[in-house]
Amino acid sequence: MKFATYKNESGQFIGIVSTEGTQVLPLREAYEKMGGETAIPADMLEAISMGDVFYQEAIKTLQWVSENNLDSELFIPLESVELLAPIPRPSKNIFCVGKNYAEHAIEMGSKDDIPEHVMVFTKAPTTVIAHDQNIHEHKELTEQLDYEGELAVVIGKKGKAINREEALDYVFGYTIINDVTARDLQAKHKQFFIGKSLDTTCPMGPWIVHKSAISNPNNLDIKTTVNGEVRQDSNTENFIFPVEEVIAVLSQGMILEPGDIIATGTPAGVGKGFKLQGS
Amino acid sequence: MKFATYKNESGQFIGIVSTEGTQVLPLREAYEKMGGETAIPADMLEAISMGDVFYQEAIKTLQWVSENNLDSELFIPLESVELLAPIPRPSKNIFCVGKNYAEHAIEMGSKDDIPEHVMVFTKAPTTVIAHDQNIHEHKELTEQLDYEGELAVVIGKKGKAINREEALDYVFGYTIINDVTARDLQAKHKQFFIGKSLDTTCPMGPWIVHKSAISNPNNLDIKTTVNGEVRQDSNTENFIFPVEEVIAVLSQGMILEPGDIIATGTPAGVGKGFKLQGS
Repeated sequence: MKFATYKNESGQFIGIVSTEGTQVLPLREAYEKMGGETAIPADMLEAISMGDVFYQEAIKTLQWVSENNLDSELFIPLESVELLAPIPRPSKNIFCVGKNYAEHAIEMGSKDDIPEHVMVFTKAPTTVIAHDQNIHEHKELTEQLDYEGELAVVIGKKGKAINREEALDYVFGYTIINDVTARDLQAKHKQFFIGKSLDTTCPMGPWIVHKSAISNPNNLDIKTTVNGEVRQDSNTENFIFPVEEVIAVLSQGMILEPGDIIATGTPAGVGKGFKLQGS
Repeated sequence: MKFATYKNESGQFIGIVSTEGTQVLPLREAYEKMGGETAIPADMLEAISMGDVFYQEAIKTLQWVSENNLDSELFIPLESVELLAPIPRPSKNIFCVGKNYAEHAIEMGSKDDIPEHVMVFTKAPTTVIAHDQNIHEHKELTEQLDYEGELAVVIGKKGKAINREEALDYVFGYTIINDVTARDLQAKHKQFFIGKSLDTTCPMGPWIVHKSAISNPNNLDIKTTVNGEVRQDSNTENFIFPVEEVIAVLSQGMILEPGDIIATGTPAGVGKGFKLQGS
């Protein structure tokens, strides 16, 4: 199941995106028509914080719509709404794993750059935009704005010192982010934060795929295209640190909360590496 | 004027701390007795987001209390309430300037560690505790938990690409944080975030001093004691990057928002440097 956050003339809502990705079911509206008795929030963070009940009520709604042949009445075309980032305003910075694919670590420097331990930096929540919004060039600040396509994990429930074996139980679902990076600022300011946190440098979405649809997050194709040209083409099986390991390490001394977003790192093929190969 | 967040049996409130720091005026209660017509929030982030009107109404209240000789009736002893961190839950990670005092940069390594450009990392909002709460030892994770006393700036209004000349207009006030750091994790995970974000590693407060009381944040004594022994004793005039510069650089491509917290870096005398001197 795919959960999106969208806006129309009546406000902001959560919708369930159809299998084909062309239509969206206004969840609260359908739920109320069904006679559901739990309040369905308009905000994805609130929905995720409800715990498993949110997903269960969503499933129930979808089944009711289908059983009563209300699909064509209740689903609306995706192009009739404005998609927002699934979590338009995270409640803390986005956790980002650095150099989690060996080939990317090498293109950024050499084999010595392959990390032995999980490396984490953050992006400010103010970087987030919807997946098809414009990324500002920040021309006055950077000459090296680069893309980094990444699988992102959305945490579903509170947890601390989470075991690798149980880590995926703490996941709500998965989305995609582009960890847009000002390479020159990243280098100039040493710690990555400033080069990673320019406004509009975290396109997210288009939606969150619930974990029930993804049996193994460490075996997913990941591809980034720039103006139609494929630049990054890998699979998350190439993670140095799989999702379970990242969750375990992050949560070892820090509580994870519903709605937390963990970007899992980018594969080889970023602009920085690309230029080096072409030069 | 000093603003504190406190808790008693009726809930969480904002209070004005007396000049001597021994009593607190329940702001909303006093304001309502005065007949004030603006709603005074219980949450410091909301209060700061009100803009200058919050400070103006607070001044008005304090004057009314004084003029009507209601001090002894309305102020309550500070020890009768539980002080929380002035901003118990920031709405994003805390920005932290790394190595902003030359002597500290040298004690952490050598003169080569003195940064040429502002270095910024972050601490998760889940690290925040009140100034006199217990810091967990995290014994199973770190053998090198270290203190770092710091002046912190609290942003008062939205701004981007802020000029150095106008930077202090964007400040609401100042507080103190201890940027508690797991040195071994900081080194092991390369980027500072993990070693800086263990739960309870950001004692904050006891309160926010409004900017009207501090004409120059770059000329303040700063002192850290450990069990009564003075370990850090410096002045913010030793900043490599003064507050105005930090605000300008941070906001150059990233919007700053009311309630954002910027820890300005720690002076020489941290445990890591201390042990080296003693060995």
